[in-house]
Formats: sequence, structure tokens, C-alpha cells
Amino acid sequence: MGIVVQKYGGSSVADPSAIKRVARRIVEAKKAGHDVVVAVSAMGDSTDELIEKAQAVSPAPPARELDMLLTAGERISMALVAMAISDLGYSARSFTGSQAGVITDSVHGKAKIIDVTPGRIESAIAEGHIVIVAGFQGVSQDTKEITTLGRGGTDTTAVALAAALGAEVCEIYTDVDGVFTADPRIVPAARKLDRVSTEVMLEMAANGAKILHLRCVEYARRYDMPVHVRSSFSQKEGTWVIPDQQEGAEPMEQPIIAGVAHDRSEAKITVVGVPDKVGEAARIFEALAGSEVNIDMVVQNVSAAATGRTDISFTLPRTDGQTAMAALARIQDEVGYEQLLYNDQIGKVSLIGAGMRSHPGITAKFFSALASAGVNIEMISTSEIRISVIVDEAQVDEAVRATHTAFDLDADEVEAVVYGGTGR
Amino acid sequence: MGIVVQKYGGSSVADPSAIKRVARRIVEAKKAGHDVVVAVSAMGDSTDELIEKAQAVSPAPPARELDMLLTAGERISMALVAMAISDLGYSARSFTGSQAGVITDSVHGKAKIIDVTPGRIESAIAEGHIVIVAGFQGVSQDTKEITTLGRGGTDTTAVALAAALGAEVCEIYTDVDGVFTADPRIVPAARKLDRVSTEVMLEMAANGAKILHLRCVEYARRYDMPVHVRSSFSQKEGTWVIPDQQEGAEPMEQPIIAGVAHDRSEAKITVVGVPDKVGEAARIFEALAGSEVNIDMVVQNVSAAATGRTDISFTLPRTDGQTAMAALARIQDEVGYEQLLYNDQIGKVSLIGAGMRSHPGITAKFFSALASAGVNIEMISTSEIRISVIVDEAQVDEAVRATHTAFDLDADEVEAVVYGGTGR
Repeated sequence: MGIVVQKYGGSSVADPSAIKRVARRIVEAKKAGHDVVVAVSAMGDSTDELIEKAQAVSPAPPARELDMLLTAGERISMALVAMAISDLGYSARSFTGSQAGVITDSVHGKAKIIDVTPGRIESAIAEGHIVIVAGFQGVSQDTKEITTLGRGGTDTTAVALAAALGAEVCEIYTDVDGVFTADPRIVPAARKLDRVSTEVMLEMAANGAKILHLRCVEYARRYDMPVHVRSSFSQKEGTWVIPDQQEGAEPMEQPIIAGVAHDRSEAKITVVGVPDKVGEAARIFEALAGSEVNIDMVVQNVSAAATGRTDISFTLPRTDGQTAMAALARIQDEVGYEQLLYNDQIGKVSLIGAGMRSHPGITAKFFSALASAGVNIEMISTSEIRISVIVDEAQVDEAVRATHTAFDLDADEVEAVVYGGTGR
Repeated sequence: MGIVVQKYGGSSVADPSAIKRVARRIVEAKKAGHDVVVAVSAMGDSTDELIEKAQAVSPAPPARELDMLLTAGERISMALVAMAISDLGYSARSFTGSQAGVITDSVHGKAKIIDVTPGRIESAIAEGHIVIVAGFQGVSQDTKEITTLGRGGTDTTAVALAAALGAEVCEIYTDVDGVFTADPRIVPAARKLDRVSTEVMLEMAANGAKILHLRCVEYARRYDMPVHVRSSFSQKEGTWVIPDQQEGAEPMEQPIIAGVAHDRSEAKITVVGVPDKVGEAARIFEALAGSEVNIDMVVQNVSAAATGRTDISFTLPRTDGQTAMAALARIQDEVGYEQLLYNDQIGKVSLIGAGMRSHPGITAKFFSALASAGVNIEMISTSEIRISVIVDEAQVDEAVRATHTAFDLDADEVEAVVYGGTGR
């Protein structure tokens, strides 16, 4: 049997008893004959506690030093996991991101992995050790500085290691049973998906399903690495996220609709009364890009011929809201727009599924379900495998439920499972 | 001006306000024109807290993983110190022991520094940064594993860095004003020494004066590095520990007696009725060495001709007591001794001073002072610059005070200083 990479998040290693439980789980995989490599996050809330410490000495700590500080978190958890495994009579070796060969660019706080050179890990495996790697961290290629990958980074570490080691599978352990057709806290009848393509998972992750980090899914897709999302509290099969079907291969059994995702983290900005001339929109989005603001959906209303002006609306992360408003205010004279409107009481509801490509009528059915539920649509955006709408934040739950029911996604029977947080 | 290396212990960086105070102190040295390199320990009790975490997952954690865990402590404190300096408008860069080029042997938990290759530190200094280095830790030469130097390791890190960088001085910041003629908690009239030779400091450190770790003094002596022991709470000059006088140089002004040290950490074992034959003592001490027990003083009584047997007594760290007794019990039949006696209610009092060499009568005066105070001497050991006696633990304070007074070490006036812990 080959290599299995497992990932355990902060809640799975929050305290000594949780760490011992994780150690038993890891040893089971080793006993089953696998070579096991594990990526771990920092214990529970310890990253937040370190950030508090930093802010107590400096309101704006340098990014290099913040990375140095935060990487202590996984160093602690990985050593403890290795000790707990050793206590079970198995040999484990922990490695920092740097030691594990996780090579990144130099952007502290949100570094991207550019290479993985796992020589030390391979040696440790060859010597029969279970390998524990600090998630979320790496070392920059040029300057040999310690970096962190940003939120969700340990998922990415796990998939990157799995790809570099040629692992059979990357198992992402979490506190729910897998990927669901909708957030079970909103839709109690939501069903666990047994399998989903990386392409569809990518849309789900990008549109609010927080069970897997977007970058992790992108990485898995690029390297054709199967990901198994499953609960660390049970032995059940979870959701297999598997590479998109290859040319000539048997088509993957794809449900028409995979699920309904939602996202309450965005805001909407409307630039009112933009002169309807070539290049005006470009100047607006150049200004936003210059301020490192990520834009999601964009809608431009049909120009009112009488006025020669148009409105441009777009959505963006709420956390970028003030930066974007300031950037736009600086170019008001240059662009000559009339007004800026800001609204963070919005939510995005997305219907996702590969089957959409070849099935007409999906859009009509979606909008009709929303209308029946009394939900007003503010913006619309589509891709080949997704339709997203912006609605009032207060109507998100109702919109998700109505859509889920309309597309026959509700389970016949609600499984007796305690849900911890799909979709967060 | 050249490079100054400063060392701050755990109590100096115990919380955010302490860290900010240390940062101001470091910036003062930078403002004064020095290049500043700082070695820091882990915050307050954080090392003990990490050890507790380890024991919660494994009663006997592997030494490699314990080192990986504990090195997180200095990683946190050094990053926070760098941030606090940055907050004062100065640029600081923190480096782990490995990044700083602290190369050690492979003995986890008590590694010895075998080389320092401070290329990255020198580059950072050249770029104008203040450099913060994690104390207590290094990386092994052969296996590139993370190691720790054992208790007092940050003092050693500081002196080793100072030597490798050709620093002008290594400043050891502590919570007292310097090195005293005796523990001020026992002898309120104890005086601060303005200067002391490394040779004498070595004897003081080896005999219970815990203000500087023995290995640190050994390192300073080997590399002729001046060490300035001073308070982090005041601007006063502390105690300069300076290299022994060189051939042909002006003799250093040496007081006859530098001070009185004491040590309550030892125990005494007596092997009763050892056959008085060649090789018996060797077998006893070979057995102890085989169990990694460190012996301090050894006394063999004159053989009683009538019995053909002798008693051998020695002292050792109390922490090694059970190991030593077990090792000796195993060789009872082989050696043919009669009995083992164990006593950990002892204390060692040492009179230390370079002047002893050339001043007769010191020993008589010392023993006479102890006799006048009613203190019984159990064992005696001497070197060229030290006389140590073993006494009843309950009489240690009285013995220290009587000796201090007899050698005119008492200050005319007790300085108004808050003592935190000289001699611990």
C-alpha cells in the first residue's frame, strides 16, 4: 500500500485528549499498512491567542515577525501529536514547513506554495517513521524566510504534500461527515455527497462552502489528487472529491445539481451615474485592483440613453469594503460618477452542478423557486456549472431552503448526525 | 562602536509590558551607536507550561520531539520582542537558533554548542537591523535536528554569539544588580562585586552561585569574552566578569576573597566498609559513571589497619541520588562493601578567591569561623582558588554569614536594593 496524507485542523488537536484521539486514528492507518504523513494545524484557538499577544506589543506588527510568531503554533501541536503517537508504541518524527520542504513565495501572511521538496519526509518514511508536518507554513525560496499560507493553509499543505509524495489520497479530517448539498444548520434535510468532482467542489468552495479551502481544491485539481473529506469522530466514508473526468475515460456519475452554497461575507458597492463612455469601467476596476481589492460579481445596468449615464454594481469581501470605497472616492473627479452606495446586508446563494451545462430550464426553475419564497434577486451571475444570485441577507436561509427543495435535494429521511459546521 | 550582545531571561520577557520595557532598553543601546544582537529566553513560565502539555500526552516524550516543542517558546518571545522594537520605530529581525547558525552536537535536551556560523546575523547587522536570536536552542551538525542546550542555555547562547561575532561585550540582564559576595537573602550585608575574573566566577558558578550558568562562564573564559552581569531594572553598572590576566599584562586587581557561595542541591553517599585493596574505588566510580552520575567531592577515610576496610564518601546532585544508590547496590557482591548511607540533608559552603593561592592562613581562618559559629564540618575539598566544606543543611545560612563576616566582606552600609534571587 502507498502513502496516505491526513490533515487534522485546530479543533481536532485542541487539547491533550483530542491529540491522543488523533494519534490513535493515525496509528490505525499505519497498522492498516499505509505510510502515513500528517499535516496539523495549531491547537484550538492558539493562533488567535498568539495574534492577541502580538497586538499587545504592537498594533501593527511586521508581517515577517508575525509569521515567525504564528508558526510556533503548529510547532507545538505537531510535536505533541508525535509524542502521543510515540506513547502508543509507534515512531513519529515532526517537521516544520521549512524542514518538510514547503517552498513558498515571499508574501508574508498569505504566501503561495511554489514547490515542495520532501527529501527529509521521504527519508523518514523510508526509515519507517510516521511523519507529522506543520501545516500553514513554509519557507520562502529567495530569502529563506519563514512564511505562512493564510487561512485554510493547512488544507493546502496537506494536498501539496500528497501531490509531491505521490500519495494515494489526501484525507481531510473535519468535524462533519463530509460535503453536504447545503449547510445542514439551514437545511436539516441536506444530504451528504458521496463524491463530487474537483470542478464542482471548486465552485462550492468559491461560493461559501467553507468545508474545504478554495486554494486546497485548486491544488488538488491541478495535481489530480483525490481528496477524501471525512469526520474525525467516526469511521464512516465521507465525501470523495475526485479529479474531473479525463478525455476518453468513463464519465463520472454526476448529479445534475450537486448542492446549494451560500455566502454572507460579501458586500455590494454601486457606482451610480457613471458616464457611459469607453474606458470608464476599466478606470474603476483599475483603481480597485491597485488597492488589492478582490472583486466577485459585476453587473452593469443598461445605459439609459436619455442621460448617457449607467450604474455599475459589484460585490467584494466585506473586509475590503472600506479600502474599496476610499479607492473609488479618490477617482470621483476623474471618472465623473455621481454617487457611491455601500450595502453589506446582502448574501449570495449559488446553485452548483456539472449537469447544468446540458440541462436547460435550470435557471428558470431556480428563479421561480426564489420568487415563490418571496425572495427578491438583486444581482445574477452565472458560469457553466453555477448560477449565483445576490439577495437580502435576511432572506438567505429561506432562499437556500426553497432552492434545495425545488431541486429535489432533500433527503427522504434526515440522518441522525450531529452537525458541527458545514458551510462555515 | 562595535557589537553588543545582550541576554534577557524569561522573567524579563514574561508579559507584554515587560517585553516593551526590554525593547526600550535594546533601542537605547542602538541609539548609543552600537550594533545590537539580543538572545532571549521563553516568556516567564512558558517552558514549564509546554513541558506540562507534553506530559499530558506522553509520560516519557521522545527527546527529539520535546526539543521541537520547547523551541516554540523562544520563537514566540523573540518575535514579540522584534515587534515591540518595530513599534518603537526601529527595525528588528528575529532568528531561530538554527537560522542564527548555532550548531550543536546531537544530544537532545542538553546539546553542546560546537560552532557558531552567524552569516545571516552579520547580514542583518550590515543592513542596519537589530537582531533578536532565540536562546537555548540550536541545530545539530550531523542530522540537522533541532536541539536545546538545557537549563541556563540562553546565557550560553549569548556568550557564544558574542564570541562568534567578535562583540565588545556580552551583557547578561537579570533581576539583581550583579554578582554579590554572598546571597543577599542570607547575608544582607553582602556587597556587589564590581569585577571578578572568569576563573573565580567559574568556581562560584560551579559551587552554587546561580547568577551565571557554569557553561556560559566556561565559554566566556575559553573565548576571552568580557561579560557584564547587570540589572534590567536599573542603569547601574553591574559586575564585569573579565578574562583572567594574560601573560605580561598588568595584574588584575584581585581581592583576596571574592565571595562565599553555597549550594543546597547535593546529597552525600557513603560506601561503608570497602575492602582496602587496589582497584576497589575505581570499580565504585566506574559503576557511577556508567549510570551517568556526576560526582562532586570525594573523601576516602584513612584505612583502619585492624579491619582492612575503609569508607568512601562522595557528593552528587540530589536528582541523581536514586540512580547512584541503585548502581551501587548492583555491585555490592562484586566489591564486597558492607553498607550504603544516603544523606540529602547537607549543604556545601565555598570560600572563593584568587588571592587564596598566595595567602597562607585562609583555611585556618575559614574553619575557625565555622567552629566559632558551632558549625560541624563533614567533608572538605580544596582547589587553588576555593575551599569547600559540606555541613548540615540546617547550618548553611549560619556558616555563610560567619564566613562572610570573618573575611571582612560585609559592606559598611547595606545598599537599598531589592534583591530578587542572587545565588539561587
